[in-house]
Amino acid sequence: MSSQANATSMSMIVTKGTLDWAYPPFILATTAAAMGLEVNMFFTFYGLGLLKKDLNLKISTLGNPAMEMPMMGMHMALPNIVSALPGVDGLATSMMKDLIKKKGVASIEELRELAIEAEVKMVACQMTMDLFEYKMEDMIAGPELGGAATFIEMASKSDINLYI
Amino acid sequence: MSSQANATSMSMIVTKGTLDWAYPPFILATTAAAMGLEVNMFFTFYGLGLLKKDLNLKISTLGNPAMEMPMMGMHMALPNIVSALPGVDGLATSMMKDLIKKKGVASIEELRELAIEAEVKMVACQMTMDLFEYKMEDMIAGPELGGAATFIEMASKSDINLYI
Amino acid sequence: MSSQANATSMSMIVTKGTLDWAYPPFILATTAAAMGLEVNMFFTFYGLGLLKKDLNLKISTLGNPAMEMPMMGMHMALPNIVSALPGVDGLATSMMKDLIKKKGVASIEELRELAIEAEVKMVACQMTMDLFEYKMEDMIAGPELGGAATFIEMASKSDINLYI
Repeated sequence: MSSQANATSMSMIVTKGTLDWAYPPFILATTAAAMGLEVNMFFTFYGLGLLKKDLNLKISTLGNPAMEMPMMGMHMALPNIVSALPGVDGLATSMMKDLIKKKGVASIEELRELAIEAEVKMVACQMTMDLFEYKMEDMIAGPELGGAATFIEMASKSDINLYI
Repeated sequence: MSSQANATSMSMIVTKGTLDWAYPPFILATTAAAMGLEVNMFFTFYGLGLLKKDLNLKISTLGNPAMEMPMMGMHMALPNIVSALPGVDGLATSMMKDLIKKKGVASIEELRELAIEAEVKMVACQMTMDLFEYKMEDMIAGPELGGAATFIEMASKSDINLYI
Repeated sequence: MSSQANATSMSMIVTKGTLDWAYPPFILATTAAAMGLEVNMFFTFYGLGLLKKDLNLKISTLGNPAMEMPMMGMHMALPNIVSALPGVDGLATSMMKDLIKKKGVASIEELRELAIEAEVKMVACQMTMDLFEYKMEDMIAGPELGGAATFIEMASKSDINLYI
């Protein structure tokens, strides 16, 4: 591949399922699709939950590497003991959701809908479905089932591959 | 690279060391090898622990982005304060191990052995060996030592590159 | 791309902002640049904090998948309740910083400076700047602003792409 070659396709393996980590794959997918790329998303492990009909995403204060939450403009560093108290994640999540709304950032539900409209190909990991005992009726319509071999095949035909 | 080109090799940089996050690299490695790809794995940071002879992997409830543990079919959302109590990670880990066994999913030890048999090339990060003071006698035989340049070289010759 | 082709460029999307997870992107960037590759870094989400003038990075004991901290040669497994106590992360962070210093590993500030000197191209995510209300005067000089499309463009021209 010449360094000037333009990508024609991108494949992502989506493994995380929190409110914050749901944004990168859907923003990248919708942006790449809008730029004319063929986009594949393989949802596995905790990321498979992003294909559920009812998304009830929570932010992971504890998984936040910076251990600080942007809250209405203040950067609040939460001591871990505080962020470990029941209710605090719920508070952080609703503050994050308010912030997203205030800033006019699309919701994950909206971005997922945009991705579907843009014909982004979505594959749900069969092994994770089995392991976590997810039911097909709880998942959105559209995604097909596949395994690691499905991802390897998609990735082998893609110019950009990302593990998210 | 034409978008129809088939991949001939895959390189992964493996940075995580929990029971859950140990699965993606070994599943991808063994699947890709079975499909005929040449596979390289560069183990660094917490991922280097996956090359220890004695694996004593724990699940990271706190690192679980969905903050829910699939437990024998029930999805239990643990309040962080509960998951922060001593013993709870151990409980979650043994329940996860039971679930893996019940579902017939291979153990990490088994997948690692399969990867070695499939001639997956494994490289242990020298800098991490030094930083974490790991001893060669605690590691499995086979992997060679290397640095970031070793990974860049492997990645530059691979069609699929993933940072895990 | 033939499997013997040499890479001429690498693009990374940098999403994490802790002391430990700041190392992989900067080590890979400086190593690849030293090997003659053109390197692009797109800083977004918690990773954007790595472009702040004043870095005050903390290690994430809770985000440490191995749930053990290498401390002066001892591997100490911290019960989560202990690592959740105020002050423990600060202690772990200063012990990690001491270890890094003792082992002669460069600081993130030093690696970042090396990357800039090696003409690594750095892009700061505009959406994250807005969402987290970061101010330009708090960021180092050099990086330009961009969006997901900027990353897709860079990645489409790169041989190695990594989501970190």
